[in-house]
Amino acid sequence: MNAELISAGTELLLGEIVDTNAAYVSQKLAEIGVDVYYRHTVGDNLGRLAEVLRHAFQRSDVVIITGGLGPTQDDITREAIAEATSRPLFSSPEAVATLRAFFAARGRTPTDSNFRQADLPQGGVHLHNSCGTAPGIRLEHEQGVVFALPGPPVELKPMFDEAVIPYFLEALGARHERLFTRTLLLCDIGESNVADILGDIIGAQIDPTIALYASPAQVRVRMATKAADEQAAQERLAATEQLIRERLGEHVWGVDDDTMESAIGRLLCERGASLAVAESCTGGLLASRITDVPGSSNYFRGCVVAYHNEIKMRVLGVPESILQEHGAVSEQCAEAMVQGVRSALAADYAVATTGIAGPGGGTEQKPVGLVYVGVGDETGTHVESFNWPGSRAQFKSRVTQIALNLLRKRIIGSV
Amino acid sequence: MNAELISAGTELLLGEIVDTNAAYVSQKLAEIGVDVYYRHTVGDNLGRLAEVLRHAFQRSDVVIITGGLGPTQDDITREAIAEATSRPLFSSPEAVATLRAFFAARGRTPTDSNFRQADLPQGGVHLHNSCGTAPGIRLEHEQGVVFALPGPPVELKPMFDEAVIPYFLEALGARHERLFTRTLLLCDIGESNVADILGDIIGAQIDPTIALYASPAQVRVRMATKAADEQAAQERLAATEQLIRERLGEHVWGVDDDTMESAIGRLLCERGASLAVAESCTGGLLASRITDVPGSSNYFRGCVVAYHNEIKMRVLGVPESILQEHGAVSEQCAEAMVQGVRSALAADYAVATTGIAGPGGGTEQKPVGLVYVGVGDETGTHVESFNWPGSRAQFKSRVTQIALNLLRKRIIGSV
Repeated sequence: MNAELISAGTELLLGEIVDTNAAYVSQKLAEIGVDVYYRHTVGDNLGRLAEVLRHAFQRSDVVIITGGLGPTQDDITREAIAEATSRPLFSSPEAVATLRAFFAARGRTPTDSNFRQADLPQGGVHLHNSCGTAPGIRLEHEQGVVFALPGPPVELKPMFDEAVIPYFLEALGARHERLFTRTLLLCDIGESNVADILGDIIGAQIDPTIALYASPAQVRVRMATKAADEQAAQERLAATEQLIRERLGEHVWGVDDDTMESAIGRLLCERGASLAVAESCTGGLLASRITDVPGSSNYFRGCVVAYHNEIKMRVLGVPESILQEHGAVSEQCAEAMVQGVRSALAADYAVATTGIAGPGGGTEQKPVGLVYVGVGDETGTHVESFNWPGSRAQFKSRVTQIALNLLRKRIIGSV
Repeated sequence: MNAELISAGTELLLGEIVDTNAAYVSQKLAEIGVDVYYRHTVGDNLGRLAEVLRHAFQRSDVVIITGGLGPTQDDITREAIAEATSRPLFSSPEAVATLRAFFAARGRTPTDSNFRQADLPQGGVHLHNSCGTAPGIRLEHEQGVVFALPGPPVELKPMFDEAVIPYFLEALGARHERLFTRTLLLCDIGESNVADILGDIIGAQIDPTIALYASPAQVRVRMATKAADEQAAQERLAATEQLIRERLGEHVWGVDDDTMESAIGRLLCERGASLAVAESCTGGLLASRITDVPGSSNYFRGCVVAYHNEIKMRVLGVPESILQEHGAVSEQCAEAMVQGVRSALAADYAVATTGIAGPGGGTEQKPVGLVYVGVGDETGTHVESFNWPGSRAQFKSRVTQIALNLLRKRIIGSV
């Protein structure tokens, strides 16, 4: 069974808002095993919307259109469905009554525009909107089924969950196949290396299928399989996971929704150990990511963002001689920051960053993008240097990911 | 002149990522006066992608496809363009050389997969990627022009700005109408209040048009006008801006791309003043936002993330009696954090946050979402409390916005 999605709204085509509804609906459909092959965005134009609807009716079982159900003249989803299915619109007495009640409950009077929302293509059924005035529509017609849902996410999501998902589950029946996925999270290896190492498996297009996704300092390997039986799916995923781990195990640091910061949190909790952070170039982002994890107060002592060199000396105890001889962006300074913050905040583990985020401040010897990342514990300190030219935001993002990974490796004893 | 957009990627159809590229490209095209009537999302399937391309070639002047240019086997945009335009692919020696240089500069060796990225449909031109290995493509063919751009936003945006926008500007010529906008950023007022105060102007649908957008702790008022002549447009925008400022001036804190942190940076630079931050519940995010501003090292001394109460005492000098009598989430603690960090980091201004981010840690008297935000300088300290229940991420985001706004108001002397 497949569905085709249409987002209606000129504001989407103008890029004034990002279409988060499309991702929400897509994800929910994927979970229950409904295939989506096409998604479209069309403006508030009757001809074009009807044309895209007709095209979608020809090739897809179910068409879901979001937006364009409001009370104003540019809300034309009702009319477009009527035109694409060659059915007249009529005013639903039941919907008129619901609208009157909605406004009465809020002490307001509906206008003529509001009553447009009670219009329905012949044969259509209204879907209740628990969060607004625009009812949704379900219409079974000659070529399939079309759902129309309101555009505001707070109205769309409950209506989709309450009226659309149950329709699909019933239509699919108990024996239908759902999509099951598992994603392995890898570090210290590039996407193309992973592609080469897994090339034969990916090329064989086995079940589960394997897809690679790269993001800064991380590669994700996503396995996906369809099954009616969850246990069979999990067994297939586990077998493929083992195959991948045999080749790439040392690079796998997490699964599915793990983040580097949540993985570190788990490791620290297991060890009953505490953590302190000293940041220069990452400016607080490293601490912020660590504290994104619920319960991080159990192991996170705190952080010193030592942006000015005087703070490096005053609060972290970095010797002035290091700053004068080697500069703040140096292996020596990173090491002193690690041990300084460990001691000042009385923590078991510490991690520190010092580098040049740019766009200014670079020199020939120390260019923008150069960074020293240090990790340490009572047994000593380990510092690595990297060079990641890029925007300030990219630099901060990459360096925090690298620092968290280095910290993770220190905790498990691999650096 | 019009353009049709295609986003390629099964991960988009599965709802695993939200398509922010589409909004970026749409917005930029709207600004230069290029109409977009259709946008599509298609998975990593050669037949379907080629079909959508062929359909788009028939009705649109320019087709822009994003994604599917990576080195792996499911990256099939190159092949789909070749198929839809009936042209063979060839390996571009120039692109191969660029790839080799990219890897050599990073001390890495390209793999066979990487060299797929040097393939081009016959007649195509490579577009330089300043942030990654996937070159873009421009191909002028029998039915129009197609651009292919890489999917990662950090690679797409610079390539779009450098290679696609100039193409359109040249094709459009000097006399075409472009969209000019100016956005006023407001705080301490809600969207419906703004709508009421500006109701008559918005209702009159004057030129420039006015639209309101609400986001957490902020309302944006966007003015837009079309003109071939920039000066005429800027004069119209300035006149409307004045009209709005006459009614809402006290709430306007910035324009267009200003951020609260960049506005604060400007204020501090003007005054030659320095800033220190103490964070508990925001966990480093406040410092991170402040250091997102290039040149923030000119005024930002640093930050202490005092997550554990012991750090509040040890580093910030919060008296133990305050923590025992009032607790860490209290007006008294916020005040002590402000003055403690001002003194410890020797800064002119300081801001501090202490609250309960949740999901755990709340009590009946101090529920999840309660936060105290303090700002201070040599003349004293001002603390306000807020209650923002929500997710941990929403809480951190809202509290940093509130803290920055309170700091801004302290610097300009309004609290």
